[in-house]
Amino acid sequence: MPTTDSTIIKAPEALPVIEITRDFEAPLARVFQAFTDPDLIPEWLGPRELTTVVDRFDARSGGSYRYVQRDPDGNEYAFHGCFHTVEAPTTVIQTWEFEGYPGEVSLEYMHLESLGDTRTRGHFTSHYRTLEARNGLIASGMERGLRDSHLRLDELLARA
Amino acid sequence: MPTTDSTIIKAPEALPVIEITRDFEAPLARVFQAFTDPDLIPEWLGPRELTTVVDRFDARSGGSYRYVQRDPDGNEYAFHGCFHTVEAPTTVIQTWEFEGYPGEVSLEYMHLESLGDTRTRGHFTSHYRTLEARNGLIASGMERGLRDSHLRLDELLARA
Repeated sequence: MPTTDSTIIKAPEALPVIEITRDFEAPLARVFQAFTDPDLIPEWLGPRELTTVVDRFDARSGGSYRYVQRDPDGNEYAFHGCFHTVEAPTTVIQTWEFEGYPGEVSLEYMHLESLGDTRTRGHFTSHYRTLEARNGLIASGMERGLRDSHLRLDELLARA
Repeated sequence: MPTTDSTIIKAPEALPVIEITRDFEAPLARVFQAFTDPDLIPEWLGPRELTTVVDRFDARSGGSYRYVQRDPDGNEYAFHGCFHTVEAPTTVIQTWEFEGYPGEVSLEYMHLESLGDTRTRGHFTSHYRTLEARNGLIASGMERGLRDSHLRLDELLARA
């Protein structure tokens, strides 16, 4: 049974950081797979009304990725970055850039923690270049997209 | 004629950032090459008493790098990261990790600015995960290594 929306988002006042915590009702290895398998990314990443197409997604240390999200009006939003560290089944450290704001890159840490055979806690920390960049992203409505992504991920994890 | 040591280092109190500015007596394209050509990296990167061996250095967007520095006693210091953006002749955005502090990754921006046919200004900004990580790096003596690197780079640029 999927959890209800339990995403916790913190944006410390002094540092250009967003910290996210979220529990998932699935074992560690399965949650890690959902974050790193290019075939699964379009199943959950992004708000529900967008269609995601993975251009490349080579989830290994030293690899890179790019994906494009399209809304019902045909507008496209593309994102890309490189994978600094991919260590199954717990850790991904990667860069992230929205191509609509070129040159504004963030560094993202994901750490998955096993809470037993059927529950996994995700710790996600994103570091932005400036407080303005961080605050602008929050103002853009990232929270709704993030919560929707996590609910879609719940659904994916509950299938199969 | 190489410049004398003109490296300017700033560490703002409130943000985990190091900002470096340095002028080089060479044209833009030549300075960019010194930062991105794996054959030139060992000629200048790091303090003079260390020997640098490039393990891999694929300086393109989505590429990655690793190099190892050895001191006269045989101690080795290894560093690696991925290249988020490489745009000749002005821009590199990359991650950086000293393997002696695994998991502590920084995001580094390099922007080169032409000051005419024979002079180039380098703007380098490194973003650390925490103030503690930034301050620890400064306490470790990175400044001396950085100034020595830039003096060695002056020498390289003055040759040929």
